[in-house]
Amino acid sequence: MSVRELAEPFAGKKALVTGGLGFIGSHLAEALVGAGAEVTLIDSLIPEYGGNLRNVARIKDAVRVNISDVRDEHSLRYLVRGQDYLFNLAGQTSHLDSMRDPYPDLEINCRSQLSILEACRHGNADVKIVFASTRQVYGRPRHLPVDEGHPVAPVDVNGINKTAGEWYHFVYGEAYGLRVSVLRLTNTYGPHMRVRDARQTFLGHWVRRLLTGEQLEIFGDGSQRRDFNYVADAVSAFLLAGAEERANGEVYNLGGPENVSLLELAELLVELNGGGHFTTVPFPDDRQAIDIGDFYADYGKIERELGWRPATALEEGLAQTLAFYREHGAAYWDEAR
Amino acid sequence: MSVRELAEPFAGKKALVTGGLGFIGSHLAEALVGAGAEVTLIDSLIPEYGGNLRNVARIKDAVRVNISDVRDEHSLRYLVRGQDYLFNLAGQTSHLDSMRDPYPDLEINCRSQLSILEACRHGNADVKIVFASTRQVYGRPRHLPVDEGHPVAPVDVNGINKTAGEWYHFVYGEAYGLRVSVLRLTNTYGPHMRVRDARQTFLGHWVRRLLTGEQLEIFGDGSQRRDFNYVADAVSAFLLAGAEERANGEVYNLGGPENVSLLELAELLVELNGGGHFTTVPFPDDRQAIDIGDFYADYGKIERELGWRPATALEEGLAQTLAFYREHGAAYWDEAR
Repeated sequence: MSVRELAEPFAGKKALVTGGLGFIGSHLAEALVGAGAEVTLIDSLIPEYGGNLRNVARIKDAVRVNISDVRDEHSLRYLVRGQDYLFNLAGQTSHLDSMRDPYPDLEINCRSQLSILEACRHGNADVKIVFASTRQVYGRPRHLPVDEGHPVAPVDVNGINKTAGEWYHFVYGEAYGLRVSVLRLTNTYGPHMRVRDARQTFLGHWVRRLLTGEQLEIFGDGSQRRDFNYVADAVSAFLLAGAEERANGEVYNLGGPENVSLLELAELLVELNGGGHFTTVPFPDDRQAIDIGDFYADYGKIERELGWRPATALEEGLAQTLAFYREHGAAYWDEAR
Repeated sequence: MSVRELAEPFAGKKALVTGGLGFIGSHLAEALVGAGAEVTLIDSLIPEYGGNLRNVARIKDAVRVNISDVRDEHSLRYLVRGQDYLFNLAGQTSHLDSMRDPYPDLEINCRSQLSILEACRHGNADVKIVFASTRQVYGRPRHLPVDEGHPVAPVDVNGINKTAGEWYHFVYGEAYGLRVSVLRLTNTYGPHMRVRDARQTFLGHWVRRLLTGEQLEIFGDGSQRRDFNYVADAVSAFLLAGAEERANGEVYNLGGPENVSLLELAELLVELNGGGHFTTVPFPDDRQAIDIGDFYADYGKIERELGWRPATALEEGLAQTLAFYREHGAAYWDEAR
């Protein structure tokens, strides 16, 4: 089913999206607005994170944008009231930042999740919550592809805190009956992704370098394998997990339609771009310490239970992404300066 | 080996014990002082937690007592400097409290652990750290006895935060070379345990009720099985994990010499006390939601690798515990009023 069809159950419903001006949140907002939902977006617009008002330029008159930080528990208490759905996407995403200074990551990925859940527990226990978690909870894969039964063993502070955030959701589900679903996202890419640096995804940074004529840098020998989801496919999963009652209390991996080495990915990008250069460089020490090696996910559970699968081939998604940033990129990378 | 022998490697060394006025911390302090270590105890003496100056009455002139909270990152930075060992025992232990108000648990069991580790990383990367974790990280057992390979799946906020605290230690070990060992404690009991209420251990509360002529209350049908460590055996494990280099980067379960049902435990206590009464009562809702059913640990790993095993039979440990509180109890339960 298309994103448009998957959004239909949300017609006339009230939906709150944390991180709503961000990469995935803005696409999700667009889908919800398209279906006729009443949408509120919360975003702090912290420059180092993913929020960007340009991401909602097309829907800005159809949504309520509430600039606030999920660490602000008082505003959250008000904002969750009366919502039918809470798509909980706000997060600190940089692994390196979490190692350099662990406190902001703790505040956003742990404390704020507790605040959000406390607000729902006490103010709106009927809301359906979908939480954006990450493959990073698994740490270094012990087997591939990684399914939901793989041990959870994060290797950096961000991974630990995202795991805690995910588990808080389940504990509040069990103890207080909140309806909660968790998606463990793999690398997601597409229009609206952060391209100023690699804080959200290295692929955003690569796209920017490619389109501005700079050389891509691959850490290590480039043999590390990864899988990728085009953003529309991630949005489909959020819509499905939100709408389906059977998703309550469940955690689902997302995963790419194929897996590639970083070297193959760089070659594909250069080819689709019609030119460009890349090189391999030694891992910086701080990245090496928290690198997870190969990773790709088994998304069989969400396929079996909710009928989700990644619909966009990597080549197609990358081509659309390059086209977007070729047209709109200047506005996105300007802000990096 | 006896606690006295196990403490010998610490002669002349500097050791810091967080939660040092608490139940296990005070016994550990006594062992370290006995060996001739230079011991500093940090404790906040928060009335709801385990610290109590009576616990160190016998060694008060031989230790440095620093009343401070592990949430105070500035004092920690000073206090960790120059220490050879850090026995990191401070924690919020009440599962119910963590569900009623999750923030203090987050601050103590997550944020403070990061502060302690940041203080070591930047101010004393050579210190050896032993962290007190808990069986609660496993949640509801999927098999018994529970070994370290059992999935980590905590069922309440306290369990989640203790898991995060444990994992921070390992991440700082991996990324910054800190020497870290983690012990996952099962139910520990003995002199100095909190008896005012069940915040630290239900057994402390039982002992107080028994000795003051009140009826013990067993939640559920009393068939739940548990294992118990006498405090001297837990102290042995901390000393071993601190002294042994091969314990670095490792997590070890502690576990009792036997497992018993709560009904059997109550019968044994009444018998040892020469009288008393108990009854079963339905689980209160808030406890039922986070109850884990049967639990007992497989301590084979620490037995194989470090030669630890619980030396004190349950009957013997309980008899010593009853004797202690019969003599000193009034002073301990007075404070509950």
